[in-house]
Amino acid sequence: MKYELLHTNKNTMARHGMVECNGYKYKTPMFMPVGTKATVKTLSVEELYDMHCGIILANTYHLWLRPGEDVIAKAGGLHKFMNYKGLILTDSGGFQVFSLAKNKKKDITDEGVYFKSHIDGQKLLLTPEKSIMIQNKLGSDIAMSFDECPPASASYEYLKNSVERTIKWAIRGKQVHNNKKQALFGIVQGGAYPDLRKYSAIETVKIGFDGYAIGGVANDGESKDDMYKAIDYSVAYLPQDKVRYLMGVGDPIDIIEGVIRGVDIFDCVLPTRIARHGQCFTRHGKINLHNQKFKEDFTPIEHDCDCYTCRNYTKSYLRHLIMSDETLGGRLLSIHNIRFLIRLTEELAEAIDNDNILKYRDNFIKNYRTK
Amino acid sequence: MKYELLHTNKNTMARHGMVECNGYKYKTPMFMPVGTKATVKTLSVEELYDMHCGIILANTYHLWLRPGEDVIAKAGGLHKFMNYKGLILTDSGGFQVFSLAKNKKKDITDEGVYFKSHIDGQKLLLTPEKSIMIQNKLGSDIAMSFDECPPASASYEYLKNSVERTIKWAIRGKQVHNNKKQALFGIVQGGAYPDLRKYSAIETVKIGFDGYAIGGVANDGESKDDMYKAIDYSVAYLPQDKVRYLMGVGDPIDIIEGVIRGVDIFDCVLPTRIARHGQCFTRHGKINLHNQKFKEDFTPIEHDCDCYTCRNYTKSYLRHLIMSDETLGGRLLSIHNIRFLIRLTEELAEAIDNDNILKYRDNFIKNYRTK
Repeated sequence: MKYELLHTNKNTMARHGMVECNGYKYKTPMFMPVGTKATVKTLSVEELYDMHCGIILANTYHLWLRPGEDVIAKAGGLHKFMNYKGLILTDSGGFQVFSLAKNKKKDITDEGVYFKSHIDGQKLLLTPEKSIMIQNKLGSDIAMSFDECPPASASYEYLKNSVERTIKWAIRGKQVHNNKKQALFGIVQGGAYPDLRKYSAIETVKIGFDGYAIGGVANDGESKDDMYKAIDYSVAYLPQDKVRYLMGVGDPIDIIEGVIRGVDIFDCVLPTRIARHGQCFTRHGKINLHNQKFKEDFTPIEHDCDCYTCRNYTKSYLRHLIMSDETLGGRLLSIHNIRFLIRLTEELAEAIDNDNILKYRDNFIKNYRTK
Repeated sequence: MKYELLHTNKNTMARHGMVECNGYKYKTPMFMPVGTKATVKTLSVEELYDMHCGIILANTYHLWLRPGEDVIAKAGGLHKFMNYKGLILTDSGGFQVFSLAKNKKKDITDEGVYFKSHIDGQKLLLTPEKSIMIQNKLGSDIAMSFDECPPASASYEYLKNSVERTIKWAIRGKQVHNNKKQALFGIVQGGAYPDLRKYSAIETVKIGFDGYAIGGVANDGESKDDMYKAIDYSVAYLPQDKVRYLMGVGDPIDIIEGVIRGVDIFDCVLPTRIARHGQCFTRHGKINLHNQKFKEDFTPIEHDCDCYTCRNYTKSYLRHLIMSDETLGGRLLSIHNIRFLIRLTEELAEAIDNDNILKYRDNFIKNYRTK
């Protein structure tokens, strides 16, 4: 995996770059839609290409449990299994183990995490080694190190121990990683504490990875301010020549603030999840198509949007689909919402090249908050 | 609406023809997918074009209740509302009023049918005039007369009265029909009784319609034998120069038997409904992808199928989507199943041209019943 810096920004950490991996080449900043179970919910791969999607994320936890990494390996890897011709990143499974197993018994030890499957309650153990070995078999282009994902409410002491454990886990994962076509990323943790983020970043970089992620910033209950601080404290110690990925962030304003702080890649279920609930992004904030006022609105979601949905469908029809629980509704809104975020990253790249990203941000926020 | 006879068959009633309406021109026999609420469930219109779909059916009952015929009229009609560039047939709403309201109070009078909305329980009245006026507003290419749909268990006496009522309703509907761009079809009823079918067909043809449908053959509990008889008895009295539509039939063998008996158009929810339950058509009968044996089956549903799904996806992946409740699964299977039936009609047209449709049927049935 190669990262090439195309343009840096004068007054901010923002950067316009290019990632190259396994023959795929895409410009950053990028938004990465989430294809949890080897499918971006409701969408075909052609629809992803059409919205200029370069990279998608698939969830190791889900694919491990079903259909199992061996089935996908036998299919020739994730790309062949799901017919996607683009970059695929797999997460480590850590986040799901920590969040899905939230209300069930889970047991975090230095070895790994014992937890119960959300499908059949089977007791399972996920370790740093196991996570990497599963990802090796899945054959994604980018694998993620297995990290501990502490809750937003975690104390300084807890986070300190958690950072130490995550570093040890990163070393163990790297040791067993043996898929030469697969890049491996490390993850920086440490909450909103400058010293923990610094320590985590420096130690993770010492291990040496193909890219670096910033984790623990998309927790429920975390303030925006803490998120931005966590990014600042982490990026400061990350190398210029490696790609940076902010995990779980998909709010448009957070993406802009992340780019300004030097982040290259973002992922989030937000655009597809809110789509299935009838919500969509616009330059003037989110709208909810359940609203009666769209019943006879025969205009597209956004006049100047180039997505398939806006080119072909009215809010009135989309509302009808949503009100009628027709899956085409969630599908058409997912297309718009993902394209909205990808267009945003394209415009951010342009703003970086023109050295006016702060002005772009201020304008965007002004419009976004004026309905 | 014009119907042109291209080729008739020597030993059977089968016919290869061409329908032309509002600038659209398609060959018959045709299979018509069901787009109940102005969307063929899970599919985009481009996917319909890709599977050579010419005509779709939309349900008057559902669109009347939501979003309402006035919203669709304001949108410029159904084609514009749902962005479909092909023929659209709307049913009369009769079948839904009779079946959806099955377990609720409904009151059938000569005036029409009083029933309760399945959405909010509101008491409503659907009459022959109202049905046609709604369809006029929906702006479909083909409207259907409002008919009484008696259950399969109905007595001879009941059916006799029902046929009389349906004829009176057809006359009343035709009188208020005033959309010059919209064809109007009459419906032949009469169960499996030769004299009732004959009477119904002759009287309906006397009224004069742009095409004729055969109703009351897709009832629960009806035998195949009764279905084929009902078709025979009806078709015998229908004019050669008008298109014939068998309502609610989508089993592959029934389509073949219907074509042999002189039917041109078929519709059914079967291909999309079974798709959402993980089932798909093959030349060797239906298969259910929930079956464990497909877990590592890395071949398409059918090697020689030209549909998008078979060109790109394996049974292993499709099974994974179905097992994971991912809507892409139902979508990909819907594409295969509809294309399967449309290909069947294409092959039937060829068999008619080659005068070997009976041999085609026997071969098809032999394969279909040999797993």
